[in-house]
Amino acid sequence: MRTGVWLIGARGSVAVTALTGALALRARLAGPTGCVTELPELRGAALPGWADLVFGGHDVVTLPVAKKAEDLAEAGVVPGRLVAALADELGRTEQELRALPDGGTQARTADAIAADLRAFRRRHALDRIVVLNVATTEPTAARHPAHASLAALRGALAGPEEVLPPSSLAAYASFSAGCSFVDFTPSTGARLPALAELAAAAAVPYAGNDGKTGETLVKSVLAPMFAQRHLRVTSWSGLNLLGGGDGANLADPAANAAKVASKQRVLGDALGYRPEGTSRIDHVAELGDFKTAWDLVTFAGFLGTRMRMEFTWHGCDSALAAPLVLDLARLTAAAHRAGRHGPLTELGFFFKDPLGDGPSALAAQWDTLAGFAAGLAR
Amino acid sequence: MRTGVWLIGARGSVAVTALTGALALRARLAGPTGCVTELPELRGAALPGWADLVFGGHDVVTLPVAKKAEDLAEAGVVPGRLVAALADELGRTEQELRALPDGGTQARTADAIAADLRAFRRRHALDRIVVLNVATTEPTAARHPAHASLAALRGALAGPEEVLPPSSLAAYASFSAGCSFVDFTPSTGARLPALAELAAAAAVPYAGNDGKTGETLVKSVLAPMFAQRHLRVTSWSGLNLLGGGDGANLADPAANAAKVASKQRVLGDALGYRPEGTSRIDHVAELGDFKTAWDLVTFAGFLGTRMRMEFTWHGCDSALAAPLVLDLARLTAAAHRAGRHGPLTELGFFFKDPLGDGPSALAAQWDTLAGFAAGLAR
Amino acid sequence: MRTGVWLIGARGSVAVTALTGALALRARLAGPTGCVTELPELRGAALPGWADLVFGGHDVVTLPVAKKAEDLAEAGVVPGRLVAALADELGRTEQELRALPDGGTQARTADAIAADLRAFRRRHALDRIVVLNVATTEPTAARHPAHASLAALRGALAGPEEVLPPSSLAAYASFSAGCSFVDFTPSTGARLPALAELAAAAAVPYAGNDGKTGETLVKSVLAPMFAQRHLRVTSWSGLNLLGGGDGANLADPAANAAKVASKQRVLGDALGYRPEGTSRIDHVAELGDFKTAWDLVTFAGFLGTRMRMEFTWHGCDSALAAPLVLDLARLTAAAHRAGRHGPLTELGFFFKDPLGDGPSALAAQWDTLAGFAAGLAR
Amino acid sequence: MRTGVWLIGARGSVAVTALTGALALRARLAGPTGCVTELPELRGAALPGWADLVFGGHDVVTLPVAKKAEDLAEAGVVPGRLVAALADELGRTEQELRALPDGGTQARTADAIAADLRAFRRRHALDRIVVLNVATTEPTAARHPAHASLAALRGALAGPEEVLPPSSLAAYASFSAGCSFVDFTPSTGARLPALAELAAAAAVPYAGNDGKTGETLVKSVLAPMFAQRHLRVTSWSGLNLLGGGDGANLADPAANAAKVASKQRVLGDALGYRPEGTSRIDHVAELGDFKTAWDLVTFAGFLGTRMRMEFTWHGCDSALAAPLVLDLARLTAAAHRAGRHGPLTELGFFFKDPLGDGPSALAAQWDTLAGFAAGLAR
Repeated sequence: MRTGVWLIGARGSVAVTALTGALALRARLAGPTGCVTELPELRGAALPGWADLVFGGHDVVTLPVAKKAEDLAEAGVVPGRLVAALADELGRTEQELRALPDGGTQARTADAIAADLRAFRRRHALDRIVVLNVATTEPTAARHPAHASLAALRGALAGPEEVLPPSSLAAYASFSAGCSFVDFTPSTGARLPALAELAAAAAVPYAGNDGKTGETLVKSVLAPMFAQRHLRVTSWSGLNLLGGGDGANLADPAANAAKVASKQRVLGDALGYRPEGTSRIDHVAELGDFKTAWDLVTFAGFLGTRMRMEFTWHGCDSALAAPLVLDLARLTAAAHRAGRHGPLTELGFFFKDPLGDGPSALAAQWDTLAGFAAGLAR
Repeated sequence: MRTGVWLIGARGSVAVTALTGALALRARLAGPTGCVTELPELRGAALPGWADLVFGGHDVVTLPVAKKAEDLAEAGVVPGRLVAALADELGRTEQELRALPDGGTQARTADAIAADLRAFRRRHALDRIVVLNVATTEPTAARHPAHASLAALRGALAGPEEVLPPSSLAAYASFSAGCSFVDFTPSTGARLPALAELAAAAAVPYAGNDGKTGETLVKSVLAPMFAQRHLRVTSWSGLNLLGGGDGANLADPAANAAKVASKQRVLGDALGYRPEGTSRIDHVAELGDFKTAWDLVTFAGFLGTRMRMEFTWHGCDSALAAPLVLDLARLTAAAHRAGRHGPLTELGFFFKDPLGDGPSALAAQWDTLAGFAAGLAR
Repeated sequence: MRTGVWLIGARGSVAVTALTGALALRARLAGPTGCVTELPELRGAALPGWADLVFGGHDVVTLPVAKKAEDLAEAGVVPGRLVAALADELGRTEQELRALPDGGTQARTADAIAADLRAFRRRHALDRIVVLNVATTEPTAARHPAHASLAALRGALAGPEEVLPPSSLAAYASFSAGCSFVDFTPSTGARLPALAELAAAAAVPYAGNDGKTGETLVKSVLAPMFAQRHLRVTSWSGLNLLGGGDGANLADPAANAAKVASKQRVLGDALGYRPEGTSRIDHVAELGDFKTAWDLVTFAGFLGTRMRMEFTWHGCDSALAAPLVLDLARLTAAAHRAGRHGPLTELGFFFKDPLGDGPSALAAQWDTLAGFAAGLAR
Repeated sequence: MRTGVWLIGARGSVAVTALTGALALRARLAGPTGCVTELPELRGAALPGWADLVFGGHDVVTLPVAKKAEDLAEAGVVPGRLVAALADELGRTEQELRALPDGGTQARTADAIAADLRAFRRRHALDRIVVLNVATTEPTAARHPAHASLAALRGALAGPEEVLPPSSLAAYASFSAGCSFVDFTPSTGARLPALAELAAAAAVPYAGNDGKTGETLVKSVLAPMFAQRHLRVTSWSGLNLLGGGDGANLADPAANAAKVASKQRVLGDALGYRPEGTSRIDHVAELGDFKTAWDLVTFAGFLGTRMRMEFTWHGCDSALAAPLVLDLARLTAAAHRAGRHGPLTELGFFFKDPLGDGPSALAAQWDTLAGFAAGLAR
């Protein structure tokens, strides 16, 4: 069950942390903390093993992976001793990375991406490939009539216009090459009718969107707690301070809007109403690869008594995201092998803004996920 | 389905808040915020209605209930307009309150308690009575050989010695009078082999212990979150600042020890290991009926990256506890009616230190509770 | 030393809290907590006594003062028993409040305002009047060439154009009527060259701007602490959640910008550099008259070690502002009496964005203030 | 002006961080962040330069300094590149460290300590030596009649009894050898009448006690803020979670009591009353060289309105303490040179529990310190 893991944004912090970790796990230099597929409820023969994974990917930047891994060690994201021990293997992965193609028209660019994927499959005799988008969040994409059907989309892509945002073009190319696709970002990705049509035609599964790694993760357990205790949440406000590249990008109002909307969705779903308040995102470069989120929740109890709780979350985004990326690669590959296609709505556990109408409470998402994994194992 | 609700500690903050709220709910002067038995998953014909509940109780203090309700209004725990509107009804409840008997020996004291319960049942033609302990937490009780069996206990109670702590004597008297018993405190209550024997003989159910209203409630959703994300909690430390009478009492090291132990139990259960750290309790009279808890959680993620979260909970204990007391009265009465006896292990949702080996994660406790309520409704 | 206290925004929360408090202090129904002029270092014969103060004011709204006081009691800002005890006196103040005039041109409006002030002085045989702006924050005002000199301003005001924002027109009218002026808001107020000229000509003092009541107050002691310990603040980010009317208004980006700028000024002054980060303001109606601010400070210590602190401030803005408004009325009246005119730069202790180049560290501002008060007493 | 810096506890985290930093400053490999003597108000010709300092010390442990420095680099306290660059110099300091003598009687032990100091002075032709106690906090020492006078003390020390705790014996030996003494810990140190007598006789200065590096530092600016605003602090409660060796030691109730008492002193001094609440210390090994303190302050404002603030401090104790140790060495040496002897009460800026009756507000302590430094420079 040789499985390709193709990362869009392969030289970024999340990708390189995931890669370093997977190599360390394979070499038994590190334990699987943070990997949910290593918990007893999910672990099993249906999933590809660490040694079955082969890594490749696209990126627009050119910083060598080994250098990026050293930077991450300097920043306290990964242990320096692992980077040193894995230097050779990190260097070998370098050979599997490609510049993001630009074919003139989007149709030709998609062909070039798909060609990279097919060559990767052949080169390593892979049974299948999971393409994972871990690139920087895009600005909210403009709608286009050609998004409505595959036929219209194919026609439009051949023209000079930019019809699809990069994340959706990557999904298009993945499906065209018979690869599954996972979007770990809030970008559009596979969420267009034309792409659903293509995934169905290609019989490949896909999953997304927007990995749930910090404030929203906490919300997904606290909001159900308030609901199950019949306490009325009267306001929920938050501030996310993000360092690093993603923080700078999300300070851009357009990208910010996409992220903020997906952050608040869980409240409406879990509570049955949308309390007052918003969740803001600010960029603080000083925080580096870490982020700090503060939330204030006010709530009313019996006979209207007003109470409040606050929480602060100090997390390392790459360290939280990377193991989930590996989990998603393993689960999506196993689902593909088991003949699943279309949206994998059972993977809501991993996402802020999951595909489908599944539960938004983490505990219910966990139960769904465990059932999904058990189904794959049968 | 006329149901007696007999409160041990009937003049305390929790009891009077519960009483005021129940009267307000009956009179449709307030909504059921905080009452989980009014959520769609639990609500149903099996439970006694608000108009079916008749309140009485024991207490060692003599402050009139109406005066206590005014004090609670002054302190911001209940709305003054409700206390004013319900003044007459609060006064009528006064007639149903009794001083805690003292019969010389514990056997005679238990007889006098049971006699009060039987008279309450006759006076109001009640189908059944739930006795709920909401009195101040006791110091950890000394073990006694007579706790081991009902026969030994009966013999010992007739002597001059204090064999049982007050909470257990109340359970003994309740069971003897055919009443169910709920312990909302960390005191010993019904948790003795001799009392289990008596409850079985009397075919009555019982529930407990230690209502889960603040810091531990939050722990019961956060600890499973860390576990399900395979994040390793490396320390969990907390400080609880409690005002009011319970705070002063819990500053007593013996009572404190009981409470602290039940506060940390959830971590071991949910995580599968006990992280470093303790949960402290301090008394700060200034906080009045409110409490503030602060917790620091440190945890390790992928490849050992160290992260942390903090939360602060500012809650009003009486406002959080009172609706749960009413929920427990309704659920226990319905279970009694349905023929259930012995420990109601399905009620772990309500308690820090629940009877039996049920789950400690709130979401799983909720599922168990919903199933329990559905079973009663059949 | 009969002193008029004329409030712009006299029916707002800050004004009515100040009024209720002043009446309570005069009647010895309350102590002077929060009034810095009652501290030993400032108290003295030079200041008007509580019984010397006569209150009046302008407002655009018409809600009776007694009703507003009841609303404030309901919201927990002032004690209900004080409002009840002072009902008659609050009613009498009602007679001294006027609708804000509108004379067609700004010149005629200013005349009408000044006429109200002169009538107030005559009616109560006042020695002098302090006009205090406690109205809602204005959007940042547009610059106008006529702001540069008094002659140009007089010419422009006679025309049909809106040359001055309302706060500056109030300062103009105050100075014209020989009254001192204090701006407790971040609005423009007296901060225009033409108005400085007028204050000099009229020989009246003025003070401002923007009362320092919460997050900025804390910054004004923490920033000097970091500076004096030679710790390098690397970022300082904050979120202010404001309820009530001021919160709604400050959610307007234009007003928000004015307030945010004055909130960060203290950091540059106290540290000698501007650390990364911003201070945001959001409106959360649920918080009512209270506000919650959260700040995260990251800093570097010896050899670059990175550390952090956070604070949360839960304050009642009206309760924090009102006693300072009374302090400013007393101090400005005494300065006026002592012959001071022009900007009272010694009052930086009270303001986020003080006039002049005084210190921004609270302790230094305190020393300056104590010296100022001592000078008045001589 | 060659100055010896003799550290009691020379192999501990604070000492080795101070040493590494001083060597880095001398070699211009690091800037003086955290060193207050490098601020413009204090810097000056009167203080010994970095190149004038020679380090030595006593310790009961034997871990080589270079190894300890590596451990500190691993723990994120000092940069690994500095430790590598300074390896040779750190090794040279090793030659100046001595095991703590044990002479049988305390008199003979003191003689041996003094002999080590005199030899150090001769070996390096030092003008003077400052002895600084940075050893682990002692349990509260038992009182002894011989503490009352130098004559009685000398008699008692010759006997077999342990008359002085180690910190006081170190002060005794220092004074005997003509060296000044600084106690950075809450231990007894020089605070005994007999030792004051000896310091006077030897004409040497001393300073202390208990370096102010975290929660108490913040208190020393916040408490004056509340006082100057005439806000009434109704409770102040805190929890300090300390990792590392000092944390483990302070979990010992006897040492804890000493530290807690000095932590609360500032509140009484700054406020003029002692609010309710205590400051607790717990050991959490996981935190390593860092500590986290959380404080809750409740306060009443105008007309009794109740408000609150919280802060969390995440600091690295060694990184905060080390530059202050260097500052104290420089200032004490300069004072000694300038002919000062007895308690240096002007150094309250540095201590939780300063000698003398100086101010407890940080700003006032800063002014005092700046004046003291200016005096030395004249």
